[in-house]
Amino acid sequence: MKIEKYQIDQHNYLYEKQHERKFNFLAETLEQEGINVNTIVTKLADLQIAIPSWALGTGGTRFGRFSGAGEPRSLEEKIEDIGLLHALNRSSGAISLHIPWDIPENTDAIKSLASSYDIVFDAVNSNTFQDQKTQNYSYKFGSLSHSQKEVRQQAVNHNIEVIKYGEMLGSKALTVWLSDGSCFPAQQNFKKALQRTLDSLQEIYACLPTDWQIFIEYKPYEPNFYSTVIQDWGTSFLLANKLGHQAYTLVDLGHHLPNTNIEQIVATLMMEGKLGGFHFNDSKYGDDDLTVGSIKPYQLFLIFNELVEGMEDKNTQNPVPAWMIDASHNVKDPLEDLLQSVEAIKIAYAQALIINREMLWEAQDNNDAVKAQEIVQSAFRTDVRPLLAEARKRSSAALSPLDLFRKLEVRKRLVTERGKLAIATGL
Amino acid sequence: MKIEKYQIDQHNYLYEKQHERKFNFLAETLEQEGINVNTIVTKLADLQIAIPSWALGTGGTRFGRFSGAGEPRSLEEKIEDIGLLHALNRSSGAISLHIPWDIPENTDAIKSLASSYDIVFDAVNSNTFQDQKTQNYSYKFGSLSHSQKEVRQQAVNHNIEVIKYGEMLGSKALTVWLSDGSCFPAQQNFKKALQRTLDSLQEIYACLPTDWQIFIEYKPYEPNFYSTVIQDWGTSFLLANKLGHQAYTLVDLGHHLPNTNIEQIVATLMMEGKLGGFHFNDSKYGDDDLTVGSIKPYQLFLIFNELVEGMEDKNTQNPVPAWMIDASHNVKDPLEDLLQSVEAIKIAYAQALIINREMLWEAQDNNDAVKAQEIVQSAFRTDVRPLLAEARKRSSAALSPLDLFRKLEVRKRLVTERGKLAIATGL
Amino acid sequence: MKIEKYQIDQHNYLYEKQHERKFNFLAETLEQEGINVNTIVTKLADLQIAIPSWALGTGGTRFGRFSGAGEPRSLEEKIEDIGLLHALNRSSGAISLHIPWDIPENTDAIKSLASSYDIVFDAVNSNTFQDQKTQNYSYKFGSLSHSQKEVRQQAVNHNIEVIKYGEMLGSKALTVWLSDGSCFPAQQNFKKALQRTLDSLQEIYACLPTDWQIFIEYKPYEPNFYSTVIQDWGTSFLLANKLGHQAYTLVDLGHHLPNTNIEQIVATLMMEGKLGGFHFNDSKYGDDDLTVGSIKPYQLFLIFNELVEGMEDKNTQNPVPAWMIDASHNVKDPLEDLLQSVEAIKIAYAQALIINREMLWEAQDNNDAVKAQEIVQSAFRTDVRPLLAEARKRSSAALSPLDLFRKLEVRKRLVTERGKLAIATGL
Amino acid sequence: MKIEKYQIDQHNYLYEKQHERKFNFLAETLEQEGINVNTIVTKLADLQIAIPSWALGTGGTRFGRFSGAGEPRSLEEKIEDIGLLHALNRSSGAISLHIPWDIPENTDAIKSLASSYDIVFDAVNSNTFQDQKTQNYSYKFGSLSHSQKEVRQQAVNHNIEVIKYGEMLGSKALTVWLSDGSCFPAQQNFKKALQRTLDSLQEIYACLPTDWQIFIEYKPYEPNFYSTVIQDWGTSFLLANKLGHQAYTLVDLGHHLPNTNIEQIVATLMMEGKLGGFHFNDSKYGDDDLTVGSIKPYQLFLIFNELVEGMEDKNTQNPVPAWMIDASHNVKDPLEDLLQSVEAIKIAYAQALIINREMLWEAQDNNDAVKAQEIVQSAFRTDVRPLLAEARKRSSAALSPLDLFRKLEVRKRLVTERGKLAIATGL
Repeated sequence: MKIEKYQIDQHNYLYEKQHERKFNFLAETLEQEGINVNTIVTKLADLQIAIPSWALGTGGTRFGRFSGAGEPRSLEEKIEDIGLLHALNRSSGAISLHIPWDIPENTDAIKSLASSYDIVFDAVNSNTFQDQKTQNYSYKFGSLSHSQKEVRQQAVNHNIEVIKYGEMLGSKALTVWLSDGSCFPAQQNFKKALQRTLDSLQEIYACLPTDWQIFIEYKPYEPNFYSTVIQDWGTSFLLANKLGHQAYTLVDLGHHLPNTNIEQIVATLMMEGKLGGFHFNDSKYGDDDLTVGSIKPYQLFLIFNELVEGMEDKNTQNPVPAWMIDASHNVKDPLEDLLQSVEAIKIAYAQALIINREMLWEAQDNNDAVKAQEIVQSAFRTDVRPLLAEARKRSSAALSPLDLFRKLEVRKRLVTERGKLAIATGL
Repeated sequence: MKIEKYQIDQHNYLYEKQHERKFNFLAETLEQEGINVNTIVTKLADLQIAIPSWALGTGGTRFGRFSGAGEPRSLEEKIEDIGLLHALNRSSGAISLHIPWDIPENTDAIKSLASSYDIVFDAVNSNTFQDQKTQNYSYKFGSLSHSQKEVRQQAVNHNIEVIKYGEMLGSKALTVWLSDGSCFPAQQNFKKALQRTLDSLQEIYACLPTDWQIFIEYKPYEPNFYSTVIQDWGTSFLLANKLGHQAYTLVDLGHHLPNTNIEQIVATLMMEGKLGGFHFNDSKYGDDDLTVGSIKPYQLFLIFNELVEGMEDKNTQNPVPAWMIDASHNVKDPLEDLLQSVEAIKIAYAQALIINREMLWEAQDNNDAVKAQEIVQSAFRTDVRPLLAEARKRSSAALSPLDLFRKLEVRKRLVTERGKLAIATGL
Repeated sequence: MKIEKYQIDQHNYLYEKQHERKFNFLAETLEQEGINVNTIVTKLADLQIAIPSWALGTGGTRFGRFSGAGEPRSLEEKIEDIGLLHALNRSSGAISLHIPWDIPENTDAIKSLASSYDIVFDAVNSNTFQDQKTQNYSYKFGSLSHSQKEVRQQAVNHNIEVIKYGEMLGSKALTVWLSDGSCFPAQQNFKKALQRTLDSLQEIYACLPTDWQIFIEYKPYEPNFYSTVIQDWGTSFLLANKLGHQAYTLVDLGHHLPNTNIEQIVATLMMEGKLGGFHFNDSKYGDDDLTVGSIKPYQLFLIFNELVEGMEDKNTQNPVPAWMIDASHNVKDPLEDLLQSVEAIKIAYAQALIINREMLWEAQDNNDAVKAQEIVQSAFRTDVRPLLAEARKRSSAALSPLDLFRKLEVRKRLVTERGKLAIATGL
Repeated sequence: MKIEKYQIDQHNYLYEKQHERKFNFLAETLEQEGINVNTIVTKLADLQIAIPSWALGTGGTRFGRFSGAGEPRSLEEKIEDIGLLHALNRSSGAISLHIPWDIPENTDAIKSLASSYDIVFDAVNSNTFQDQKTQNYSYKFGSLSHSQKEVRQQAVNHNIEVIKYGEMLGSKALTVWLSDGSCFPAQQNFKKALQRTLDSLQEIYACLPTDWQIFIEYKPYEPNFYSTVIQDWGTSFLLANKLGHQAYTLVDLGHHLPNTNIEQIVATLMMEGKLGGFHFNDSKYGDDDLTVGSIKPYQLFLIFNELVEGMEDKNTQNPVPAWMIDASHNVKDPLEDLLQSVEAIKIAYAQALIINREMLWEAQDNNDAVKAQEIVQSAFRTDVRPLLAEARKRSSAALSPLDLFRKLEVRKRLVTERGKLAIATGL
């Protein structure tokens, strides 16, 4: 199915008056504080967050999966799903492919399909944490870090193949997430495993097109429960530095030990020009992959505070990071979940944008902790939702995407089209 | 396959001399310290740890599973596997069934098969955390706590059915682990959910045979990532108290928040006469379900220190807890993993048994922290492995079970018998 | 110093117009959603949060303390400080005394002084975690749980004495926080220590006036770093049940292990009618005692969601809990810190009050996790500050307490009055 | 007081026979496994662990301190205390000074005093986390990272002064631990603070003698509770790399977030040639600074496994790290605590030394997790205490240092000499 312009228009017509009232009030309030509302609305409209191809189906845990209905059965239908999201919020105009779950057989057709929805191809993701039926060697004990040369070579070749797919689609980056590690003390030799990982990454790096980036993801645990080769930002940063200027660290919000100050990591990486990508989700215990902003919205805001600080810093070498949602939808409708996640991201972004940065720097220079807190909390406590709605309105998106999604009975119609038992690939 | 007595004997003959040398040295040392070595060896020989029927196959994570080979394809083969373990260490003489993964079609035949291996039936486990094809209602949003009456009734009935299976096999306890909870703030009403859980448990309790126990397991998170209805020992204890004297709390080592002092929980529950069951495993991050003693052997020892203290307390009302291993074998051969786990449990038990408890109490009464530490660490630092070997020798088990397992090429022979692709049910 | 009515009036006159504009907009918005704004403003105006007598000075850590200036040098000056807070926000009309840091020599004079500021006496706090010069026995190894009878008796007597002070001042509750525990495994016998604690508490309980409550606080660690006798809500709840209907559990937000779902504990305790008191603060790592709402404002809101749910439940036996701030002001001016804390508490309360509870229950009954999240997050995302300002306006408090505090140069004047080197008792 | 050779001899004479019996048994066992016992005993005898000058008094928490008795009142008496330890175990032949707590007024006299006890001067420690009465600027809001140039300069100068003291005493390293950070989000600008810290460190580095090292310590939190400028090994490593080849990372076991895999950090740093120093202690919750090996002895062993692996690696550039105990003795006698700590360190070292490394590498190369675990756990389960005793015997130390300490009533005699109320400087 496709959401038509007239459906958006009808919906917006109903919400328009209420929206005007709220937006005008907020705009007036912010302008009084010296904030250029138009600039902010434009920035919000411009922000595009990639949707990973695996996030369109119901997720699960090791205890099982409770399937949803009407899930996309093919890459084409996944693109269709993202098309629906993008039509609703005009903020999801990119897809991040996962190989081999979503191998584009006919790249031209796929590109043209995506293009019809205004969707571009973000970073491509390799997978060496699962065994595919056709492969010769198992990744049970690692891939790029494996003790056997043959396994490493297979994993290196897979990454190079993923780059090739990405080139055909117009991607400009490769994301490498390694689950390599160990479940038991002494199972793996830390030093040798890290050295082998570096060697493998260098082989891949050598095949990276000159206008590409490679993102090195880190994670402390899961699916390995004692150690992970790339366990933290320090290790990823070490590897990225050894690889070269096209290599960057990728931060996934869920990949940290309890109580980690993630916003500080973001600041440090941007200062060093090495923050390449960002995976959004939320969590209370581990890598729970919940809806963005559903557990710790203030932390999300503080992270955006650093992202905005970094992106507005003229002295920084850091490129604009690649944004992606990386969540698992175990109990919610995946599309509804993604709509909520995008909303939460943009709220945090908007709140960070209305911070009076000059005043904040002054309070920081004076060590006025009370004032600094007032400044950032005042931004956080502001109801910025009208700014997002206005940005959507100007982009011809729905004023209230989730409401329209439900009113149009999108899922019901997808079930009709695809059947109840359709199951998407994913976690 | 079956391990024959002569194979054990041949093996023991080879290790005998070395064992005698080590055991005699240790026995002499301990006797000099006033410890009755024979009593301890007898206690070690008597300890039986149940093996759950789902732990005989390779486990996995939400990211997939790397299958092993020669896994048991039926309940009969699972019993055969435990028979192998029990022949090797004479400490695994019980099986804990999981319904519906292992429904015993012909209970007489199953009982007689188990009996042929000297295996009895420990607590039976219900499963309302997964949907079975035949059930009417989904447990996606809970079972005993579900907001809909029909779903709760289905879950209650399932538990009653599990009790019936257990009665036929000679079990004397039902273990209830609920994954019920929520993934998002406000998704579930805490109070109503807990009240409904209590109501459902009371229905089950009403059907419990008078010589049975019911164990209420608790867990802070996973597979739900925001809340779990029975999140901690306090909640389980509250429920067990409301249910009555046949209801107990079950402690699973992996089901705690970071840094929890589990040994103190054990002590408190035993003091209140409410510690019913114990699930062994080990973990570094969450419910990692690793080999017992592979990560925190000292914590395991401290827990056994409390268990021994509680079991030897004449004033306590607490029954001897039901012991079970509850681990997931993702990278190790399941049988080897279980052999290592049983060994670790018995080492911790032996270390706790050689603590000079009178001296410890005196140091505690005097607040002599240095002395108290010396006493328990001296026990922990003692190499008690010869005590375990001696207990095995006296029980006609193998002096070195894992060595014999490998020498007999047990897995290779199981693969021959069962095929490479056999896959067991489990996590 | 004292803040005069005309100073409040002058301040409010300046902010009035802007406030009207914001409040009217919000009131209209909320009324459209069917919310009775007046009721909420009244509830906000009625909420009083006790200030502990020890929180008016600069706090510190084991690494030292960086003193502030102009701190109160006596109980009288502490009451004066709270008087300043209460004049500014009319929400701090209670003081919680800590004995022996703040022994009221002349209770009549103290009562009358407090009364002149409209301040009442909240729960009194005993202290058996530090040694006083005059005491016979040391609490180094515990107080109510100590292995020696004499030490326990001394601690029991102290608590009874604290009750006597409280009676003279009009308090109606005793808060018992025990630091009793151990730093090393086996240092303390868990079972004996818990039994002795219960015995001691029963002695104190026997002396509790019939219209009093006793609050049992729990904490997992610090200042003991291996175990604490009352380590969690389960232990406190167990003790409160054994003591009787005047005994309750007290929740301090900072006293939980990483990732604990505190809001669920609140719901369970209220369901059981056993939530007696609440200590507010915020933290990222341990018991950091930071400004309320400075780290996890969403968690605070979710807790208030449960508090409101519990307080509005007609079937509950739970009394209205005693509210108190329990924070440590290491880098901020204590009074500014307290103003920010009270504001954060009332924001969370206001957000919880505007939740459409009927709709929420319906979404929960339908397991509509998306809808439930929309409902609570919509409340959280609403800028409720105008409601607080309106409540202050109606109570003759300052529209913007912190701004007025700074404009009046309160601290500067206190330094003039009290001197630079004045140091308050506290942590 | 001083412990005389004859006192050691008398003591050893009593324990000799028992020791011979145990050592001979163990030596025979290990030799049968192909281990060169003599080499190991020599390595154990050679290991010297520095004692920090601040660890000789009773420690405390923010809730207070329960003083011990007979604590050293001067640097001279601290050296005397370490002399006692060293006489007992011959493993504590180094002192690590903390400036300004222990400024050596007369360096020649101090050097000669230390020399009389066979004690050398290890790394010197600067202190910019507390204010001294004589300093012009406060470190309340930071030192090397402070927003004001004057404060940074004062802190830089202090470090340079500490180097000067160190040079006079024969130290060869400066340890920099910064508590700099913030208690509230946005209080500090992460990027600017890190840049300023780097600038300050470069100034200090420029004054470092060419044969010196500088160690950069990291810590996630405390005394700041939101952020710390040097929060993790990655940040320390980044700084050390920018400083140059004389700069190294220092690992303190207590300075990690929950569940951190510290042994992996050790391996990575040694691989990069950047592990400079090591602070030993143990902890369950935070930076608890408990007796080494009292909580997680297996983790300590796994760390030593990496240290031994790194030190025996011929390809590594890593220097031998500087070892120091950094603990706080809140409830134990400081000297007894230190004796237990040194013992625990050497036990872990001995266990790591008896690992059959060739076999382990083979198991690792084959991904034989079961075998790898057997190898390391077999070493850990071995009772290596006789190796330590033998090393002490050969070094003319006491066979059982703690027993002798108690038998000689050392503390009682120190109290007689120094008085009951003597209080040492420290945490």
